[in-house]
Amino acid sequence: MASTTVGSVIPCKAAVAWEAGKPLVIEQVEVAPPKAMEVRVKIKYTSLCHTDLYFWEAKGQTPLFPRIFGHEAAGIVESVGEGVTDLQVGDHVLPVFTGECMECAHCKSEESNMCDLLRINTDRGVMINDGKTRFSKNGSPIYHFLGTSTFSEYTVAHVGCLAKINKAAPLDKICVLSCGISTGLGATLNVAKPKKGSSVAIFGLGAVGLAAAEGARIAGASRIIGVDLNSNRFEEAKKFGVTEFVNPKDHDRPVQEVIAEMTNGGVDRSVECTGNIKAMISAFECVHDGWGVAVLVGVPNKDAMFMTKPVNFLTERTLRGTFFGNYKPRTDLPSVVDMYMRKELEVEKFITHRVPFSEINKAFDYMLKGEGLRCIISMDD
Amino acid sequence: MASTTVGSVIPCKAAVAWEAGKPLVIEQVEVAPPKAMEVRVKIKYTSLCHTDLYFWEAKGQTPLFPRIFGHEAAGIVESVGEGVTDLQVGDHVLPVFTGECMECAHCKSEESNMCDLLRINTDRGVMINDGKTRFSKNGSPIYHFLGTSTFSEYTVAHVGCLAKINKAAPLDKICVLSCGISTGLGATLNVAKPKKGSSVAIFGLGAVGLAAAEGARIAGASRIIGVDLNSNRFEEAKKFGVTEFVNPKDHDRPVQEVIAEMTNGGVDRSVECTGNIKAMISAFECVHDGWGVAVLVGVPNKDAMFMTKPVNFLTERTLRGTFFGNYKPRTDLPSVVDMYMRKELEVEKFITHRVPFSEINKAFDYMLKGEGLRCIISMDD
Ligand SMILES: NC(=O)c1ccc[n+]([C@@H]2O[C@H](COP(=O)([O-])OP(=O)(O)OC[C@H]3O[C@@H](n4cnc5c(N)ncnc54)[C@H](O)[C@@H]3O)[C@@H](O)[C@H]2O)c1
Ligand SMILES: NC(=O)c1ccc[n+]([C@@H]2O[C@H](COP(=O)([O-])OP(=O)(O)OC[C@H]3O[C@@H](n4cnc5c(N)ncnc54)[C@H](O)[C@@H]3O)[C@@H](O)[C@H]2O)c1
Ligand SMILES: [Zn+2]
Ligand SMILES: [Zn+2]
Ligand SMILES: [Zn+2]
Ligand SMILES: [Zn+2]
Repeated sequence: MASTTVGSVIPCKAAVAWEAGKPLVIEQVEVAPPKAMEVRVKIKYTSLCHTDLYFWEAKGQTPLFPRIFGHEAAGIVESVGEGVTDLQVGDHVLPVFTGECMECAHCKSEESNMCDLLRINTDRGVMINDGKTRFSKNGSPIYHFLGTSTFSEYTVAHVGCLAKINKAAPLDKICVLSCGISTGLGATLNVAKPKKGSSVAIFGLGAVGLAAAEGARIAGASRIIGVDLNSNRFEEAKKFGVTEFVNPKDHDRPVQEVIAEMTNGGVDRSVECTGNIKAMISAFECVHDGWGVAVLVGVPNKDAMFMTKPVNFLTERTLRGTFFGNYKPRTDLPSVVDMYMRKELEVEKFITHRVPFSEINKAFDYMLKGEGLRCIISMDD
Repeated sequence: MASTTVGSVIPCKAAVAWEAGKPLVIEQVEVAPPKAMEVRVKIKYTSLCHTDLYFWEAKGQTPLFPRIFGHEAAGIVESVGEGVTDLQVGDHVLPVFTGECMECAHCKSEESNMCDLLRINTDRGVMINDGKTRFSKNGSPIYHFLGTSTFSEYTVAHVGCLAKINKAAPLDKICVLSCGISTGLGATLNVAKPKKGSSVAIFGLGAVGLAAAEGARIAGASRIIGVDLNSNRFEEAKKFGVTEFVNPKDHDRPVQEVIAEMTNGGVDRSVECTGNIKAMISAFECVHDGWGVAVLVGVPNKDAMFMTKPVNFLTERTLRGTFFGNYKPRTDLPSVVDMYMRKELEVEKFITHRVPFSEINKAFDYMLKGEGLRCIISMDD
């Protein structure tokens, strides 16, 4: 790292989204130095997540362009702004779309990771310090995304949105832990908490659902039932420990009834990773009475309404939702990386494609076609 | 206890409901000896709970008459049937409307109290051993209720529906622990589990809700917000540690918004004890994001539908239902009685009326008028 860049604007390459749904353009941009409580990070690897795609398509949200997307990544601290004491130049970090200020009621609560200050905000395109961007081209601002904007050789993030990790961890792999994989993994390990030998149903076998299945495998579940409308997902899911498959389309009764029959009354735990309201209701109703716990992860349509008969609760079922798998980014992500280092958690199987930064639009194509799980984009290539 | 009664039919007084909604009639009935896994109990005190009233009125259910109601009581074992090893003649017991066989998956689960064999069954009017009644008058059967039928000097129950308790405990007081009070208390202590210093909202300030408030007081909650449509309940509720009151009728916006405003975003815990679906939804939506837990206790209308936006879950709220406060009757009730003996739990304040057995219909009148909380009926007077 050239220490000469500290304190000055860095000109570098970034993939700029100029318009909704149009291919990103690799541009030379300027990245301003970090202000108070901010950190400038050299991104080494980033991957594409559905949330990037969703806001890039800008269907149904207020569009904000030009913008630099990207929020699943790994990088190295280039410089730190005033007041930053937890990170130093050279530290390895995972940027995270939701932060941890360590001072608000949520950060102080053992249970919550929904920081009041740095909670996800998809509309904000500027830094909270001064309401301005750190990216510009020819003096015109380019907006941030989720406080991370990792589709750039350099980015600026609030210190609360950066998890400092073990320097020995391979950044080209563990970058996927900064969003979707941790979300699914944590939903199972931190929230559903299946016991050894128990049965778990996973609704939706995308990257998040497969990470939830990986969590069930790690927890020692003996039956992991994968549910998806797309049977093509079933073959790949076997690598993630999924032992049985149900496609709701193959049955003429609600899938919760099919699962209850397969499991003598219901599964011990279920994790919903689809975003579909019908799947959310099925995921709840398919857990066993007396002890079943269902966890919602998928982000639903704004108008969707969760509906069920209250007796399904009274018969001692629990329903919870989770955000980023209940992980507190700074406090907990380092230990998720360590799980990988101890070979308890496998991340390689999530990585199905790799492209150099110059070909970042291919990652969008793969996702649009539903091909594979995660495509790693190498910034240095 | 006259040991001479063992093995023979006991003629005694019982309050028989001959017809829906008509005053009970104290009759001389015959109580057969207990069969295998059954126990005959001399009832000393019983109290009236809403569930008795509801099935006595028989609105909306299949009526089953003549029947002996009553399920909140305390008594002494008169004799035991074949195979009963856990109880002996002279033991003090609380009959419970839901049992614990100790062998099914639910009884073996640490979390559930919904025994497969002895789970509440409001339609059954006979013993599970032989499908017959142990009560008769002039050779004609009289049906049981909830496996307890405590409005009788003697009754027969399955051993799994009897909790053996400390002989030093005053039966005329702790009889109320066999249903409603334990339900509310356990909903808070076992399921909502508020931390010391936390805020708790209680929806419905009947006996069950006030017992839930008593649980919050015992747990050290610093704010206990009582919510009821009937402001007359507020004065009495102060005795139960309720610190603030909200009547939804006093506000022109949803009560969950009123509570969120009072508590800077929501209460830490809520317990719903109304049976009203609107209250259930409000109870869920009034808990704080990140860590809030809402517990449903009230028994809803059959057609009621629980509805909420799924984002209310995703922002890390938990919703659970409970049955009998998650207490396992045989395993856990003895320790609830011990809580009373150690003066941690107060039951006296729930007892607002007392009548002799001959005036049992007065207890129905008090409840129909909404007067008081619990009326104790003394069998010996
Ligand atoms: N809560 C969080 O913090 C968080 C973080 C990241 C992603 N997410 C959400 O998690 C969800 C999954 O993300 P992903 O990247 O794995 O998505 P994905 O599109 O790759 O996978 C979703 C899968 O669900 C299946 N599906 C859709 N409807 C279904 C139904 N009714 N029944 C069964 N299967 C159904 C699809 O066929 C698909 O295979 C999305 O809603 C995403 O927004 C939430
Ligand atoms: N789950 C169980 O194991 C179990 C056991 C016993 C009782 N219960 C149920 O618990 C509930 C309470 O029993 P209880 O004996 O205390 O009844 P209760 O009738 O004495 O008290 C209910 C209270 O709720 C109030 N209420 C009704 N609708 C309301 C609303 N929308 N908002 C606020 N307050 C409202 C009423 O004014 C009343 O004061 C009942 O539904 C009963 O069936 C459940
Ligand atoms: Zn993501
Ligand atoms: Zn915070
Ligand atoms: Zn059982
Ligand atoms: Zn009762």
